[in-house]
Amino acid sequence: MDRRYFVRLAALSSLAGLFGPARSAEVGSSAEVVTKATAEQQHLEAMHKYDALTGGPKLTIGMLVYPGMFLQDLVGPLAVFEALMNREIHLLWKNLDPVGNEQPGPPAALIPVKPTTTFADCPKNLDVLFVPGGVPGTLTMMEDPEVIAFLADKGKTARYVTSVCTGSLILGAAGLLNGYRATSYWSTVDVLKELGAIPTRERVVVDRNRITGGGVTAGIDFGLQLVALLRSPEYAKAVQLYLEYDPAPPFDSGAPDKAPKLVRQFLEEMFVGLNEAARQAAIRARKLLESAGRLHG
Amino acid sequence: MDRRYFVRLAALSSLAGLFGPARSAEVGSSAEVVTKATAEQQHLEAMHKYDALTGGPKLTIGMLVYPGMFLQDLVGPLAVFEALMNREIHLLWKNLDPVGNEQPGPPAALIPVKPTTTFADCPKNLDVLFVPGGVPGTLTMMEDPEVIAFLADKGKTARYVTSVCTGSLILGAAGLLNGYRATSYWSTVDVLKELGAIPTRERVVVDRNRITGGGVTAGIDFGLQLVALLRSPEYAKAVQLYLEYDPAPPFDSGAPDKAPKLVRQFLEEMFVGLNEAARQAAIRARKLLESAGRLHG
Repeated sequence: MDRRYFVRLAALSSLAGLFGPARSAEVGSSAEVVTKATAEQQHLEAMHKYDALTGGPKLTIGMLVYPGMFLQDLVGPLAVFEALMNREIHLLWKNLDPVGNEQPGPPAALIPVKPTTTFADCPKNLDVLFVPGGVPGTLTMMEDPEVIAFLADKGKTARYVTSVCTGSLILGAAGLLNGYRATSYWSTVDVLKELGAIPTRERVVVDRNRITGGGVTAGIDFGLQLVALLRSPEYAKAVQLYLEYDPAPPFDSGAPDKAPKLVRQFLEEMFVGLNEAARQAAIRARKLLESAGRLHG
Repeated sequence: MDRRYFVRLAALSSLAGLFGPARSAEVGSSAEVVTKATAEQQHLEAMHKYDALTGGPKLTIGMLVYPGMFLQDLVGPLAVFEALMNREIHLLWKNLDPVGNEQPGPPAALIPVKPTTTFADCPKNLDVLFVPGGVPGTLTMMEDPEVIAFLADKGKTARYVTSVCTGSLILGAAGLLNGYRATSYWSTVDVLKELGAIPTRERVVVDRNRITGGGVTAGIDFGLQLVALLRSPEYAKAVQLYLEYDPAPPFDSGAPDKAPKLVRQFLEEMFVGLNEAARQAAIRARKLLESAGRLHG
């Protein structure tokens, strides 16, 4: 068996998520019923049979994290990407200090996220560059010169430039959506116009190598669609079953045109101030892009 | 205006997730376009009109976190609960040391979770007791005496005793599902039998005050269904629109009977060892419950 076997073996463990050797004393006696030896044997057998569901070249995935992001925006796609085999995932930020997620009011951010990789240490060529949403953090990022310069740079060479929710406003502010069809959170999608994008109300919008998902929970649909492109549709179906993604919302209120009138009005009125703030940030961001000669489609 | 107004005002900010006053220098200038004064005025106006979507008594929500849990199992319901107004959320563990999520192989757990509240400090009466899934951590928790005793105790008085994915195996090991219809991850749902439960293959199963969700991504469906019970269906619909939960999976492969045969076989074969380990853990847990006289429906 060559080295490639072992790389893929380790990777397969990752999808299975079950058979890896115990990593610490915390993973206790029950799990050890499945011994390392048995697991490796099972994997080797599985690999020959299921080559289409386990193979593929190494993927390098970079996910921006930032203060004021919405945790589900990050974790939905992350759950999908973590199921991939033969990949490395970087949680990218200016430094390695934990960043809080969107959780206004007391208590503050319940689950801060520790970046794994600084902008300076980010691999040169990413297969996926991903930006989560989350206001008001999104608005701040749209005008953060260090973040914008980093995204503009990595976006040049990344195979896929992607976002979920209001994350597309940050991509747009970095000049990465000019001339592209793109989506965003339902209440901010029209703001994309200010950044040269073509606002498109679909769950996931694919335009050449730009892939943008709708609000928050669209991250799972987005992730699976991206896996189909990175690997294959069959591979994405395996991840879907792994995550038991067979949604059955108890109500049909997940889009403004489906929600009861009272519900829609309630949220629309709450978002008035945000939308105006996002639009103003987008207009300022566009001016900066134009003056820097960076707004080209 | 009485104090209740301000409590609800703070709570409404939480659903809006937008207008909270800047918490730190990191939340910068753009967000400040929406001033605190404007936001409070908007909230006060909104409250009168949308009473059914903003009211409700204080809710106390306790969510177990543990080493080897699956992060999406926790974060899906958390995204829903965080959108609730007038609630407090506790991330519960033995101590306040960060616990890793399910992420075998290198790199280790990408996003460890820091508990907010120890078992000892957990409020006496919870409105919601919640347990996420995630193997192999689940199997270890099923036989952890401290965890089992804690859950059995809080389960006695909690208004709703709940789980997502394999979390139901832990509830069952604590004697909390005996005689109840319940669900679990598709590949482990049958193991519930060993714990006295009635395995039920539905996305979300409600039996009296026991509410169990299916695998991983079922946490969002679960959360909305619980909000409808805790507050009202209209309230749940507002949260659904807030999270833009209008799922559109690119494939229809999220359940074993829907997935292509090759995909189903691949995952079933990988799960053989886990299922057997889970069954053995359940049999041992049941014996302990019986000998302690705690298995009564």
